[in-house]
Amino acid sequence: MKIVIDAFGGDHAPLEIIKGTIEAKEYGQQLALTGSVAEIQKCARDNGLSLDGIELVEAPQIMDMHDDARLVIKQKADSSMGKGLRMVAAGEADAVVSAGPTGALLMGGTMVVKRIKGVKRPALGAVIPGLRGNFLLMDCGANVECRPEMLDQFGVLGSIYMKKLFGIDSPKVALANNGAEDSKGTELQIEAYQMMAANKHIDFTGNVEGRDIPMGDVDVVIADGFTGNMILKTIEGMGISMLSQLKGMLTKNLVSKLAAAVLKPSLREFRDKNDSAKVGGAPIIGLQKPVIKAHGSSKAEAIKNAIRQAIQWSGSGVSEAIAEAVKE
Amino acid sequence: MKIVIDAFGGDHAPLEIIKGTIEAKEYGQQLALTGSVAEIQKCARDNGLSLDGIELVEAPQIMDMHDDARLVIKQKADSSMGKGLRMVAAGEADAVVSAGPTGALLMGGTMVVKRIKGVKRPALGAVIPGLRGNFLLMDCGANVECRPEMLDQFGVLGSIYMKKLFGIDSPKVALANNGAEDSKGTELQIEAYQMMAANKHIDFTGNVEGRDIPMGDVDVVIADGFTGNMILKTIEGMGISMLSQLKGMLTKNLVSKLAAAVLKPSLREFRDKNDSAKVGGAPIIGLQKPVIKAHGSSKAEAIKNAIRQAIQWSGSGVSEAIAEAVKE
Repeated sequence: MKIVIDAFGGDHAPLEIIKGTIEAKEYGQQLALTGSVAEIQKCARDNGLSLDGIELVEAPQIMDMHDDARLVIKQKADSSMGKGLRMVAAGEADAVVSAGPTGALLMGGTMVVKRIKGVKRPALGAVIPGLRGNFLLMDCGANVECRPEMLDQFGVLGSIYMKKLFGIDSPKVALANNGAEDSKGTELQIEAYQMMAANKHIDFTGNVEGRDIPMGDVDVVIADGFTGNMILKTIEGMGISMLSQLKGMLTKNLVSKLAAAVLKPSLREFRDKNDSAKVGGAPIIGLQKPVIKAHGSSKAEAIKNAIRQAIQWSGSGVSEAIAEAVKE
Repeated sequence: MKIVIDAFGGDHAPLEIIKGTIEAKEYGQQLALTGSVAEIQKCARDNGLSLDGIELVEAPQIMDMHDDARLVIKQKADSSMGKGLRMVAAGEADAVVSAGPTGALLMGGTMVVKRIKGVKRPALGAVIPGLRGNFLLMDCGANVECRPEMLDQFGVLGSIYMKKLFGIDSPKVALANNGAEDSKGTELQIEAYQMMAANKHIDFTGNVEGRDIPMGDVDVVIADGFTGNMILKTIEGMGISMLSQLKGMLTKNLVSKLAAAVLKPSLREFRDKNDSAKVGGAPIIGLQKPVIKAHGSSKAEAIKNAIRQAIQWSGSGVSEAIAEAVKE
């Protein structure tokens, strides 16, 4: 199995991407970095890192935050992101990881790697650490406007992903909504509810309110891309805000610092449990091959985990199961 | 000034409502409780509470969670909630507080207390403790589907509320969206952005992403009722989840319990800072008189704070300022 990694995506490229890729060698799979080979080599040399055993693939351009997403298809097909996508499409690699711009990766994923036949729209998922277990939130922003049948199908894609990658026998699927009753929400949620309730491919448990989403009692939370993005980012922001307050509390004075020292292992556990980077990146689900969007702020550990996720995904049979489920 | 309180709304009615009302006597205003007078008196007697100085207004019915919201207008006009609304509409009270069903209070507020002339739709606000300051999120669920001009006007209503009640000179108003650029969101956000940017009544600072909402750097966050509800409830859920994890961490073993004892004052401060009940209830903004929705799970302290908020609101000149701003 070969995983290709975009060395020039994200805020900490290329150094942290290179580091994470080197750390991921422990998984025993072939790894390839795309980008300016000279720059990758220089960065490794400057930081005393060995690139032994990692394939370097020349891709002179970079997809920039401010670039039109469509550039990745033609004008910037030779970018580190574009090259990675094309390698996967051509069968030269099994999965691609990039911390570059989300819009470009979605566009490139859809146009270059292409959808599984029968998939209406690929969606961006995010596996989030909940209080009582990880859950998949999707769509997190690939499709800002959705039709009910898209939400219904996201339920199928998400259910298969959680089953195959997290070993959950019959994942509980719920619809993010502003109340429990089937009459809640806009027309979109009301219609999607009916379709999901009738869908035999999923274990639909009804609506889930915002308050219950972080509990992690359901395995898959379905939303349109606008709503999903608001939920995902609000969860992120609350995590940052509360950890920051906690830190302030523990460094207030000498006594609290002593208490903090005693609590250090528990605090680390707390932080780790709430750290999405430990789970991996955001999968773009519905494409023929695994495409993983790592967070723009990814450091080595997050990249390493995204690579681990790409390896698991690639060998999981998710794509085959999706193709089977949506072929009707 | 007279504040009327629905004694039979919420999960802990009537005991906690009565307790909170008694505690609110310290604000030195007239207070009236609506409901079955016999039951209120019995509950007070059973719990050794004195109702001295509190007016009791007979209202034999109760608006139930499962009742159609419209009942509050006619069939259940004599409910504890309906009576409170009618007292305010008739000028027999200055503001009403209820922890009863949100839908009924919104319906009754709009039909009985009535909108300020020029207000397109009243909205449900929530003042939320952010990392760096309180902020108002609106709409939190009164209007699940919105038009751009409604969001634009919510900005005006929210700005006046934060100015008059929180003394913020020129409140920063932002639109909840899935990105910073003015091209982000659905048609609703794209059009609302343009209107808000051109609105001279508000200090519009652009879009705010979910991640930045909990920081509290903007004073007013505008959303349609569906999105606002998802954001509000997700914030609530994350607070519950993280406090629960923290608690688990601090009661793990003897050493962590000792550390927790040392940290007790800081922990209390942390919990209080994140406790929406301290701020008050959710104001329904755009009505001729103050109507406050207290959380269904409100205990005495939350009711007391909602009464304090009703007093401040009633004397603040918010309604006059809104009438002036929307009359064009």
